[in-house]
Amino acid sequence: MNKAALLEQIKAKRSVLCVGLDTDLEKIPAHLLKEDDPVFAFNKAIIDSTVAFTVAYKPNIAFYESMGVKGWQSLEKTIHYLDEKYPEIFTIADAKRGDIGNTSKMYAKAFFENMNFDSVTVAPYMGEDSVTPFLDFPNKWVILLGLTSNKGAFDFQFIENAEGEALFESVVKKAQEWATADQLMFVLGATKTEHLARLRAIAPDHFFLVPGVGAQGGSLEEVLKQATNKDFGVLVNSTRGIIYQSNGLDFAQAAGIAARTLQQEMERLLF
Amino acid sequence: MNKAALLEQIKAKRSVLCVGLDTDLEKIPAHLLKEDDPVFAFNKAIIDSTVAFTVAYKPNIAFYESMGVKGWQSLEKTIHYLDEKYPEIFTIADAKRGDIGNTSKMYAKAFFENMNFDSVTVAPYMGEDSVTPFLDFPNKWVILLGLTSNKGAFDFQFIENAEGEALFESVVKKAQEWATADQLMFVLGATKTEHLARLRAIAPDHFFLVPGVGAQGGSLEEVLKQATNKDFGVLVNSTRGIIYQSNGLDFAQAAGIAARTLQQEMERLLF
Repeated sequence: MNKAALLEQIKAKRSVLCVGLDTDLEKIPAHLLKEDDPVFAFNKAIIDSTVAFTVAYKPNIAFYESMGVKGWQSLEKTIHYLDEKYPEIFTIADAKRGDIGNTSKMYAKAFFENMNFDSVTVAPYMGEDSVTPFLDFPNKWVILLGLTSNKGAFDFQFIENAEGEALFESVVKKAQEWATADQLMFVLGATKTEHLARLRAIAPDHFFLVPGVGAQGGSLEEVLKQATNKDFGVLVNSTRGIIYQSNGLDFAQAAGIAARTLQQEMERLLF
Repeated sequence: MNKAALLEQIKAKRSVLCVGLDTDLEKIPAHLLKEDDPVFAFNKAIIDSTVAFTVAYKPNIAFYESMGVKGWQSLEKTIHYLDEKYPEIFTIADAKRGDIGNTSKMYAKAFFENMNFDSVTVAPYMGEDSVTPFLDFPNKWVILLGLTSNKGAFDFQFIENAEGEALFESVVKKAQEWATADQLMFVLGATKTEHLARLRAIAPDHFFLVPGVGAQGGSLEEVLKQATNKDFGVLVNSTRGIIYQSNGLDFAQAAGIAARTLQQEMERLLF
């Protein structure tokens, strides 16, 4: 998907909401467990009930891998379903991959060719040749880790070089030599909003994928105030606050209501 | 597997060889393509012909993921085969994973519970809580990226803080607060031997997994000279130099000869 198509959808839905699909057999409603593929049944119902308020879905690949072959099948069904029924949706494989060139190329093949994801999250530690193989696919995106939402972000991402530039800033600067804002986004955690403005100054044109609103404690208003740009420039992810609102028969309806509530707040703050 | 068992095998085989299983349908012998599962058939033959000279196998997970559900099945068969037939072998899921705590826990489940890998490679960018979930599994290992063998390593891993300490050194120092040498190894590329001694000084007790000998240009002699410690302390990986020696009917035999040649060089240099 290109940037124009993403922006069109944001404007049409008046939303920058991304819904995380961290689907866990221990957390989904018990009545789904009798389905052939409970994970896909859950995802399909969540997608159908939230898609009117949502511009992106982000399956968290770890949750599928933890279920082995069955999990991989559920993931493939989920991305095919999105692709067929809602081709306007921006899809994110939240995989945090990254390896030497010939290996990153294989990950790119997995997520961009075998499954038709629009984007994949990539870890920056191994540098340029671990990232660029993902960029060889036209209209596919790399979402590079910049500043993450977890506590461990403080271990290395804030290490400053002799000029006082933190590692996450070096990453966001350097990566702009590899791709334009039409193919590269950055992950920037909502729990660290005091740095969002600083990063917006370094990367004025790029989209930021912002996790950490809700369960992890980030404020939507603060994120939108600090991080938006002339093209909106943010996708705000929510997972637990949407998909696990209820584990009864009304789980999909409850997810829809939570998504609508967030969308309305986005509409109020952004449009 | 605990460290004592690994050391016992190193001494018995007089080898620190790890064979990478980057199994690619485009590179394996054509006659295997008529098998039900060509990838597993290739891996099984390579393992059987090299195991006498080898202490560890390292499937590169990207290559299996790039084949979707089928690839995941081949991977599961490969690890089960190693586990059943050669339980003395140290197995490495070369996956370069790492995410927030609840997600790393799912990756750990994928590789340590559903598949019985002894270890997984992990990327350090997200810090402590992205690494420690893997350490909750007794006798399972984290192999953390320190200094990688690729060109992109120079983008971020060499950034120095105000005290002149490079990022890869900070990573290797900090991670030792999270785990002992009985559960934590580091990836250190053979192409950067001038730094191996420096890293050995920082981490005297930890095993180093050293990729990059052979196709990537690293020297075995230099690696062993710089990186060994009192417990050997290295696993030296070779992939293309062993598994793709021949793509004819003699591919397994050729791999065995290449593995034996490397083992003999290791024996000469180390024992």
